[in-house]
Amino acid sequence: MRIVVIGGGAAGIGAAGAARQTARDAEVVVFTEYEDVGYSPCGIPYVHSGEIDEFEDLFLQDKQFYRDQGIDVRYETVVTRIDLDRREVRLHSGDAVGFDRLVIATGFEYETPDVPGNHLHGLHYPKNIRRSAEFDKVLDEAKVAVVTDATPLGVEMAGALAKRGLETHLVDPHPWLLSQVADPDIMQPAEASLEELGVTLHLRTTVEAFVGEERVHAVRTSDGELPTDVVVLCPPKRANNRLAREAGLQIGSTGGLVVDARMATSSPGVFAAGEAIEVPQDGTGIPVQGLTGSHAYSQGKVAGTNAAGGGGAYEPVNVPWGLVVGKWSVGGAGFGEKLATALRIPHVMGVGEGISRARYYPGFKKVRVKLLADPRTHAVIGGQLVGGEGIKERADFLAMAVKKRITVEDLAWMENVYAPPIGALVEPLAIGAQGLLAELETA
Amino acid sequence: MRIVVIGGGAAGIGAAGAARQTARDAEVVVFTEYEDVGYSPCGIPYVHSGEIDEFEDLFLQDKQFYRDQGIDVRYETVVTRIDLDRREVRLHSGDAVGFDRLVIATGFEYETPDVPGNHLHGLHYPKNIRRSAEFDKVLDEAKVAVVTDATPLGVEMAGALAKRGLETHLVDPHPWLLSQVADPDIMQPAEASLEELGVTLHLRTTVEAFVGEERVHAVRTSDGELPTDVVVLCPPKRANNRLAREAGLQIGSTGGLVVDARMATSSPGVFAAGEAIEVPQDGTGIPVQGLTGSHAYSQGKVAGTNAAGGGGAYEPVNVPWGLVVGKWSVGGAGFGEKLATALRIPHVMGVGEGISRARYYPGFKKVRVKLLADPRTHAVIGGQLVGGEGIKERADFLAMAVKKRITVEDLAWMENVYAPPIGALVEPLAIGAQGLLAELETA
Repeated sequence: MRIVVIGGGAAGIGAAGAARQTARDAEVVVFTEYEDVGYSPCGIPYVHSGEIDEFEDLFLQDKQFYRDQGIDVRYETVVTRIDLDRREVRLHSGDAVGFDRLVIATGFEYETPDVPGNHLHGLHYPKNIRRSAEFDKVLDEAKVAVVTDATPLGVEMAGALAKRGLETHLVDPHPWLLSQVADPDIMQPAEASLEELGVTLHLRTTVEAFVGEERVHAVRTSDGELPTDVVVLCPPKRANNRLAREAGLQIGSTGGLVVDARMATSSPGVFAAGEAIEVPQDGTGIPVQGLTGSHAYSQGKVAGTNAAGGGGAYEPVNVPWGLVVGKWSVGGAGFGEKLATALRIPHVMGVGEGISRARYYPGFKKVRVKLLADPRTHAVIGGQLVGGEGIKERADFLAMAVKKRITVEDLAWMENVYAPPIGALVEPLAIGAQGLLAELETA
Repeated sequence: MRIVVIGGGAAGIGAAGAARQTARDAEVVVFTEYEDVGYSPCGIPYVHSGEIDEFEDLFLQDKQFYRDQGIDVRYETVVTRIDLDRREVRLHSGDAVGFDRLVIATGFEYETPDVPGNHLHGLHYPKNIRRSAEFDKVLDEAKVAVVTDATPLGVEMAGALAKRGLETHLVDPHPWLLSQVADPDIMQPAEASLEELGVTLHLRTTVEAFVGEERVHAVRTSDGELPTDVVVLCPPKRANNRLAREAGLQIGSTGGLVVDARMATSSPGVFAAGEAIEVPQDGTGIPVQGLTGSHAYSQGKVAGTNAAGGGGAYEPVNVPWGLVVGKWSVGGAGFGEKLATALRIPHVMGVGEGISRARYYPGFKKVRVKLLADPRTHAVIGGQLVGGEGIKERADFLAMAVKKRITVEDLAWMENVYAPPIGALVEPLAIGAQGLLAELETA
């Protein structure tokens, strides 16, 4: 049996590894258009910032590792076509490679901004590690950077370039950072902190053109022109599924490939995972697309396991998220207020503020918690947090709380660790839930 | 209506505050034998260590605060008797004070070790803030300290005295630290770290006598004599309920007062909370006693609310716990392996090791996770952790997981935040659960 995987990112590598483990005798072949697999693109901003020493550090495994595992990675090999009738993929070289099972893990592509100058030199889309390493050398000569789009990556890149010492501008058409994910009140302290770090925010501002001859030297925005040495573009991502679309596989409303819980596509023996697919949101069933590397890796494992004849299901998602913005961390899971309102999901909202350690213990940080619940069942449907420590763990907790239909009452009276250096008398999530209970009582 | 509270600790103050909020017209009187209320005894070790500047910092509220709240705190006032027939408490002065509702929050007392010399000068039981402040001056003159009993407080005190620069010895009869709470494998790295900090561990060692004329100058143990300047005793605690016992209230098997979910004792109108009571463990219903300040405070709020005519229930406990030992944090919730084995609770156990941030991000710390599950239902029944950050939040999560009968499969495939500075690709709890799943499959 030959299992072919298209794509060498988190989903593809997760799929190949799981396929290898599930079917010891199968031939597992991974095609990637790039020079490398097995590194973490999520770490790129932190090399630019200097927090991580070098790009090499982002590699989790070297090429020998995959050979030793019996995974045949074909580097710099572009798949140009999937032929479902002949059960083969066609390569750029003209060769065809047959498959018994196929996993499509073609990831995302950026929405290139449709404005003049969008292909000038000096425009950089963070994605590939080698291109990022080259760009890092360009940054050595640069004094000013413009980052477009306050997406999670855009916010991370802006913070990283400011930390590196560049005069950094972040341009986004929306009124607050991470507007596709986070609520404005949660982002407010994070915005202030990003400005302290030296990032000039240009919110409610659209990019109208990239200005320059061969090389960009300014960004023209709705609020004036920003002279710059480099531009980092972090626009919204979309599923990269030209191959799947041309092969006639079913594409969903988000642009992601439609798969079932086994990560099986509409064609027998063809699976898919990662940013190329859409998956249902827990509770609502609304398809969502463009999640995290952690999601891609988990989906890849399910796809690879099933492709190899094993069994496994991927459950609907509540999407815990989090990132560091300046001195704060922000995060959440399930519905935020803006999203619940936009989708007309019935909800009651409450807030509370706690602390991360005993109030008298040095270094404690505020944790602001905002929770949403179903007004009828009191089940928590989501929440968002901003604070200094423990945000990731609380976002994970919230995702599980939403998944298991845990109620506001459960959270309001939850037990918690009380130990002065690591935890306060009352857990911030409980304080948020008590705030929400008060709202429910008057609602 | 007059609501009388005996005890000014976390439970008593929680009860008084909740009673005040619930019955605005009630008279709320708190009797305490001490000079103060409204401080955190849990912070005492961290003042001795120098991490917190002064004992004053541990006060959450000053005396005026309680006056302003309409809570009548009678300081240095010893209650000598509860007369249930006459609905009054008798004071040391001979006065009697009537009550309509009573809340007993008399806390704990230490089991004084029954060995010669147990009342010498230089023996200190950490409890009251003023005695601790006096003891802190004694420490200024001391070079060597012996701490007895590797209870959570004993471990915290030993670490604190070593940090302060004293030659510190910790003596405990059991083979590992925190043996009443934690498993030995979880404590192993923490023990090594405590030793690095300068604490000499004397495990499997019993105290046979405190040696000295008026003042202690050595501790005689089963393993030889330890010369010392001071001794800090942190023996197991027991419920302090002489008053309740003499009044004829029902006492449980742990020595704690028996209460129902409303925190009502066996006598109408009489409530109790905190370390003086016992509460059922979730799942098994086994009575447990001697929990944390956070538990005491929550129980106090339920007791005070119900005493004042409101409604509220306290749910069975899973007891998340955690503390810092040297450079590690340890914690857990529900059943550990030792306790489950001792109580013959059917269980399967699995372990896993994850990391707190991306593997390439500076400062990441290992998180070792040990989980127990019911072999039939796969519900998680408890777990323990040792690591560097996020231990308290994960212990809280685990307590909720046990409470809500979350399964190993739920945890093994949980979603998690992946952001290099705050979270790794796979959550350590999930890695632990995957380890446990593998055990369940072969069990």
